[in-house]
Amino acid sequence: MGDKTIKSGKVYLIGAGPGDPRLLTIKAAEMIALADVIVYDYLVNPEVLAHARRGAEMIYAGKRANDHSISQAEINDILIRQASAGRTVARLKGGDPFIFGRGGEEAEALSGSGIQWEIIPGISSGLAAAAYAGIPLTHRDYASSVAFITGHENSNKRRHAVDWSVAAHMADTLVIFMCAETIHNIARELIANGRPPSTPIAIIRWGTYEHQEVYSGTLEDIAAGEARFEPVRIEPPAIAIVGSVVSLRDKLHWFGHRAMEHSLKSLAYSEAECAAKI
Amino acid sequence: MGDKTIKSGKVYLIGAGPGDPRLLTIKAAEMIALADVIVYDYLVNPEVLAHARRGAEMIYAGKRANDHSISQAEINDILIRQASAGRTVARLKGGDPFIFGRGGEEAEALSGSGIQWEIIPGISSGLAAAAYAGIPLTHRDYASSVAFITGHENSNKRRHAVDWSVAAHMADTLVIFMCAETIHNIARELIANGRPPSTPIAIIRWGTYEHQEVYSGTLEDIAAGEARFEPVRIEPPAIAIVGSVVSLRDKLHWFGHRAMEHSLKSLAYSEAECAAKI
Repeated sequence: MGDKTIKSGKVYLIGAGPGDPRLLTIKAAEMIALADVIVYDYLVNPEVLAHARRGAEMIYAGKRANDHSISQAEINDILIRQASAGRTVARLKGGDPFIFGRGGEEAEALSGSGIQWEIIPGISSGLAAAAYAGIPLTHRDYASSVAFITGHENSNKRRHAVDWSVAAHMADTLVIFMCAETIHNIARELIANGRPPSTPIAIIRWGTYEHQEVYSGTLEDIAAGEARFEPVRIEPPAIAIVGSVVSLRDKLHWFGHRAMEHSLKSLAYSEAECAAKI
Repeated sequence: MGDKTIKSGKVYLIGAGPGDPRLLTIKAAEMIALADVIVYDYLVNPEVLAHARRGAEMIYAGKRANDHSISQAEINDILIRQASAGRTVARLKGGDPFIFGRGGEEAEALSGSGIQWEIIPGISSGLAAAAYAGIPLTHRDYASSVAFITGHENSNKRRHAVDWSVAAHMADTLVIFMCAETIHNIARELIANGRPPSTPIAIIRWGTYEHQEVYSGTLEDIAAGEARFEPVRIEPPAIAIVGSVVSLRDKLHWFGHRAMEHSLKSLAYSEAECAAKI
């Protein structure tokens, strides 16, 4: 393995951060510039690819929730094959590789094949989306803990799915990643398991991008009770923040266009009103 | 207030990230370079100050746990006074300003005084320390949630202290910030509240610095049962990671000197052995 290590390249598992390309770290930018090949995901802002050197090979390994263009095993194979050929590989992932980024699995595959690797942490999308929406995830008066939870239902039923009866009480603030399709059910689960229906929630789409959208209201608004025709539809990519810190947003708003901010309550009612007119 | 806004400067609440100065974001480096005055905390690596322009004023607002050199109210006053004088202020905090950084309180004080501000998220120290210790905070097979919790006991007894009977079950992975003085008690509380004594824990000091130290073992090792003379002493700054993902560290080790890594069990026993010899 010593011999192999000398001949082979190296993989940098890089957190590309959220949308705002200036939230890339200095180290990530340096390593992208150094790479022979760049393997990047769907949620990586293409602007960060501008740090690459001329002639670097770009491999898109993008996945959307329901359209797995490349499997995880295939991605692992690409990383191992490229590094084994002596190339320096920048593996770019949206947010942070170790927060719902499957970076751990890629690192295991690399270690298992004797490939050298390093991780460069990135600004987690949940943390950044909250900051740009004016929501402090912790606050002495409101929240001494914050939990990051996946809202993505694990289709292959591997061991660790989220138990919402536990998750409801995980922390003062909940940050729910990849929740566009599931947030209505999750809100119902949180209420059923004891979170007050009046708990504030903000759902952030395209966090930190210029076109960031924020939908805010209460768990009850998004849970969409029976009185309403159909729930507000949220398209991915979306992250939800749940907890009393969300209410600080009114005071701490600093980023984004007011036109891109929506009240869940009024959206839900207007759909209900539409339904009444049909 | 419109008139005041035009005349006044602006405060950038900046996450300086953890120890590795290259984990600073590009945006943070740009804003530090732009600032007339830089107000920085104890846990900010002084190397990031190298981005400042010649002649920028540096104000140290450092606090250690038991040595509050400047109060939060005084810091707020400095920020407001400097910005009101038309200056661009870079307020540098270790890690991320909205994760146990009291950034929310500073933002509220600024908003309340009509001062313009922005937040630039940073790499949270907990996230980075885990990555540099080879611990993925989430993993499909081991952890679908991670909670960030403060280990610092709130001396002024404001509302949100941590209830460890709840915290024990918060998430698959727990990241406990500022826990050097409290980790023994916290480990006992976690066990008393149902986390298995064999649960893996890693305590990371000076995460991401070249001199990063890692103490690893189980909750039982650090809880320091009666059979042992005295618990292993951990000096700040320290962050603990609790949960089964910690065991991936053996496979995913990539950073740091093995000489700076310690087994909690052998440390505890060697102290017990010392005691036996007295």
